Amino acid sequence: MEEKTLIFGHKNPDTDSICSSLVMEKFDKNLGFDVEAVRLGDVNKETQYVLNYLGIEAPRLIDEVCEGQAVVLVDHNEFAQSVNGIEKAKIETVVDHHRIANFETAEPLYYRAEPVGCTSTILYKKFKEENMEIEKKEATLMLSAIVSDTLLFKSPTCTAEDKKACEELAKIASIDINTYGLDMLKAGTDLSDFTPEELINIDSKEFVSGDFKVQVAQVNTACIEDVLQNKVEIEKAMTDFMNQNGSNLFVLLITDILNSNSQAIVLGDIPVFEKAFNKTVENNMAFLEGVVSRKKQVAPVILNVL
Amino acid sequence: MEEKTLIFGHKNPDTDSICSSLVMEKFDKNLGFDVEAVRLGDVNKETQYVLNYLGIEAPRLIDEVCEGQAVVLVDHNEFAQSVNGIEKAKIETVVDHHRIANFETAEPLYYRAEPVGCTSTILYKKFKEENMEIEKKEATLMLSAIVSDTLLFKSPTCTAEDKKACEELAKIASIDINTYGLDMLKAGTDLSDFTPEELINIDSKEFVSGDFKVQVAQVNTACIEDVLQNKVEIEKAMTDFMNQNGSNLFVLLITDILNSNSQAIVLGDIPVFEKAFNKTVENNMAFLEGVVSRKKQVAPVILNVL
Repeated sequence: MEEKTLIFGHKNPDTDSICSSLVMEKFDKNLGFDVEAVRLGDVNKETQYVLNYLGIEAPRLIDEVCEGQAVVLVDHNEFAQSVNGIEKAKIETVVDHHRIANFETAEPLYYRAEPVGCTSTILYKKFKEENMEIEKKEATLMLSAIVSDTLLFKSPTCTAEDKKACEELAKIASIDINTYGLDMLKAGTDLSDFTPEELINIDSKEFVSGDFKVQVAQVNTACIEDVLQNKVEIEKAMTDFMNQNGSNLFVLLITDILNSNSQAIVLGDIPVFEKAFNKTVENNMAFLEGVVSRKKQVAPVILNVL
Repeated sequence: MEEKTLIFGHKNPDTDSICSSLVMEKFDKNLGFDVEAVRLGDVNKETQYVLNYLGIEAPRLIDEVCEGQAVVLVDHNEFAQSVNGIEKAKIETVVDHHRIANFETAEPLYYRAEPVGCTSTILYKKFKEENMEIEKKEATLMLSAIVSDTLLFKSPTCTAEDKKACEELAKIASIDINTYGLDMLKAGTDLSDFTPEELINIDSKEFVSGDFKVQVAQVNTACIEDVLQNKVEIEKAMTDFMNQNGSNLFVLLITDILNSNSQAIVLGDIPVFEKAFNKTVENNMAFLEGVVSRKKQVAPVILNVL
């Protein structure tokens, strides 16, 4: 067991998970706590753009935690999305912006959730509440997380608080949100050197309802057709994943970040998907107009049917 | 369905549940929200002392909520301790100081938990964070809740933050904490006109682990022997409750608030209790020295064995 408290976001970390872990580490260190930000998976290209911009290293990769390990969760709470061994860890703090489910502790804890678009927006408020100065590095990390989670304020999950926080952070970081943000998002859409197996794991989350396991993966792109060129191979990778994992339904969202639509590839229990979206799946595909948010527009819609 | 958002504490409400509901109502109204504090059960004598002191009425009693009803939970989160119909309600906000378990939402929400001794300590911080003035009435309500939950700072659940908040609130309310607090606690120990059925329901909570249901009730007294005079009748009431409710284990804590010990009456799966506390139960009883907190010293100890 590590003496330090470990801080991490969800498996298949996105930019919010990595950046908020690093910001939370700074916040807790400022308060005198012995903590370390770590990560539960590979850094994606969008996040790598942020780390390169700042000239910093990614947090250390971990795979599991021992019984009793003190941990802080950011950007998630569901055990299925967390580190292996989380059931036996000592969860001290959670800072998150998702629904609460498949989560349980034996002891009281700090839990701070708000229905905003990004974990970093809550961290920004925590710095303000503590009258803690925000430095350029943390401002850039939080700004990047907000741009990523809200797709430059275009996602329906984006709130006035996210926008306001991002604008304040842009001043501290001396960054033009639109220029930087679009470059960052585009860096994340370069899918050229991913194998199909890697592609479906870039940003993939499992949701459990009773015995039913739904996997919802998402990739961002500037051109949906480019991604669909490998549809057959992608479907094979999805099928292999479902067989290994025992998933009942797999939805891959290919999200056009310029036009704010998603093409879904759907495998497994297709009627559940069709009932949820009142759409016919043809050739394993359905076009979801205006859908860009897994959290707000996909996961609850499917879970509602189950 | 009611248009207003309903705010309530747990079933078998204690002083924190009632007072924090009223304070949260004030907090949300100050922010312009349409809310109403309600309660899920009878007001106990300790709480009645507080309401009489302030010359105010108890919140309205409710029994269940309709599907989609907007609610705010204070001082609890576990569905087993909440209103009937909670599974289908829209939980907008939780402010609590307990572990999180048997709780789940479909949508993101506000959740504020801290491992302090009383919900009102967190509400006090929320007023401060919003730079909201605390009036005499709310100061008295929060102070009463803190005195009740921490047994005048003697419970192991009491933190430095609870004490500090209570002292600040005492200034606003112009109250001598010790004099008022002891009178209030003593008012709660008058058990003379309770039937055994009522006694075991004054402050009773259910904890669920898998299929195992544990009921832990607590009464405060200045003299344990007084309560034990009706031991046979109390045990009958406990047995009836377990049969009706399908409980596997029932622990009644008779807590001596002057000396900070508890006499436990234990029925049902006694070996689970004995393993948890490493104690032999004799004549359905075990004396728990220094034990006054169900949350910190009893519930987790039993749940840990299960």
